[in-house]
Amino acid sequence: MTSTSTASSLHDHHSHVHATPDGIYLISPSGAVADPASLDLAKSRLGELGFKTTVDRSALEVHQRFAGTDKQRLAGIARAIKQPLPIVMATRGGYGLSRLLPLIDWQAAADSNKIFIGQSDFTVFNLALLATTGAISYAGPTAIFDFGNKKMDDLTAALFVETLSEELEILSFEAPDADPVDARGILWGGNLAMVASLLGTPWMPQIDGGILFLEDVGEHPFRIERMLTQLWHSGVLARQNAIVLGRFTDYRLAAHDNGYNLDAVVTWLRATVKVPVITGLPYGHVKIKATLPIGKKVGIATEDGMAHLVLHEHA
Amino acid sequence: MTSTSTASSLHDHHSHVHATPDGIYLISPSGAVADPASLDLAKSRLGELGFKTTVDRSALEVHQRFAGTDKQRLAGIARAIKQPLPIVMATRGGYGLSRLLPLIDWQAAADSNKIFIGQSDFTVFNLALLATTGAISYAGPTAIFDFGNKKMDDLTAALFVETLSEELEILSFEAPDADPVDARGILWGGNLAMVASLLGTPWMPQIDGGILFLEDVGEHPFRIERMLTQLWHSGVLARQNAIVLGRFTDYRLAAHDNGYNLDAVVTWLRATVKVPVITGLPYGHVKIKATLPIGKKVGIATEDGMAHLVLHEHA
Repeated sequence: MTSTSTASSLHDHHSHVHATPDGIYLISPSGAVADPASLDLAKSRLGELGFKTTVDRSALEVHQRFAGTDKQRLAGIARAIKQPLPIVMATRGGYGLSRLLPLIDWQAAADSNKIFIGQSDFTVFNLALLATTGAISYAGPTAIFDFGNKKMDDLTAALFVETLSEELEILSFEAPDADPVDARGILWGGNLAMVASLLGTPWMPQIDGGILFLEDVGEHPFRIERMLTQLWHSGVLARQNAIVLGRFTDYRLAAHDNGYNLDAVVTWLRATVKVPVITGLPYGHVKIKATLPIGKKVGIATEDGMAHLVLHEHA
Repeated sequence: MTSTSTASSLHDHHSHVHATPDGIYLISPSGAVADPASLDLAKSRLGELGFKTTVDRSALEVHQRFAGTDKQRLAGIARAIKQPLPIVMATRGGYGLSRLLPLIDWQAAADSNKIFIGQSDFTVFNLALLATTGAISYAGPTAIFDFGNKKMDDLTAALFVETLSEELEILSFEAPDADPVDARGILWGGNLAMVASLLGTPWMPQIDGGILFLEDVGEHPFRIERMLTQLWHSGVLARQNAIVLGRFTDYRLAAHDNGYNLDAVVTWLRATVKVPVITGLPYGHVKIKATLPIGKKVGIATEDGMAHLVLHEHA
């Protein structure tokens, strides 16, 4: 994977400065933070990258498996919307946002113009915000699993900084198995289980001609296929201009799978849905992950075994 | 649990005879049969119960994890619809029906007046048939896991025979944790993961005032809650007259669940959805299981720690 930033000399007729938003407010809307030291490490790492950080006062709460009661987590989200720092980042994923969706003030979230970022469980935050307001938010690193990781991935950090500052115009990655495509559309998606969990609900964005990206962790290929089938049967897949697959990791095949695996699922997907499928997106429950603007119109093209996701086109 | 059959003396003014349909056609629409000997045992057991059996010629096929290719399994279903035996039983569940749903002739299935029965993956067959035609089919034992089990449960077998013959009028079971209820409605549901996998698709029945029963296996309580949340957010739960929970089995809690468990999910469900919740239904991935008519109007009432599911009311 390479990240391509157009050299400033090529567009110096544009006078705007790419300033990185420099403050991050950390919240825990999903699972409890197991190790507060990892959050300290994340704050330190984010500081080295030039971000000042504030941790919401309930970010370290613990109730059952959650980072506090529903009321505490909702209050944390509400405080994040009102406070002055421009970026709101989830400390981690887990499970917990689904049941909060009807109780979040989405219009206030959109009106705040905050840069909301998280992944995994956070997918339903991204998509509910998009469905209700059309506002853009981000899928990308979380404080603990990325910046609080002892072996932080430098490229993940660089992509985070460059994407939020809009310096990164094109995300290029190796995609030897990609179908030919040259399309534009709204980028959306995230964790497949969370995307599928919104089908039939008011929180599912209705995106035509979109570029849908998906990843998952700990899901056997038959579950991945079942969730893709639900998206297929509901008409979602056929309405997209491209399906971009990130990493599907940490599942275990059994002897009785008898040759059925993730490749078989992708083969079935291609035979079933007449939409270009691009594999290889550096995104998922893995160390190297892109920062992706959900709800933004982007482009995608493949050429010579590479895929190019055009995240930002200067006017 | 007790099964209550109204003694014939109490309604001998009805002249109709409760004849058990006596022939079973066995198909494998989902996972491959791993051990053909278990199917032989099932045939023997079903024979002792008075059923003659015919095994579809592709029921023992194996393709990847499936009981044959999609084409083979579809052909098996089509043959089952056309052949003369009155009951069509799945040999087992697994995974595989989801992607076949658009390719099954549902009207032919309904017009055949066959008694279709299966469980788990078969839930989507039950519900798609109901959604497209309104026809009744059954959730209940499968050949291999119930009748082919070395320790077959006699009550499961008795309930199967008595329900299909409509001798069983009321299924009573211990439900000490049931909300008070006295309601009637269409009985529907089955495996929770399979029910949720139909949300947003044309195969999801639109049932108002129904009695929704659910079970699952190998799903952590947070996944059970997430699927219930999807049913809640989609408006399905609020439209039911009762939610009846069978057995949720074979999951493992972790230390970080920290007190979160299935009881916590049921507590949350009751606080969230204003519909009576009845627990204790003898149904699920367990040996003792009722045979349940999906799509049939039934009654449910609770009294003194017992729940009574009225399956058949004589006219």
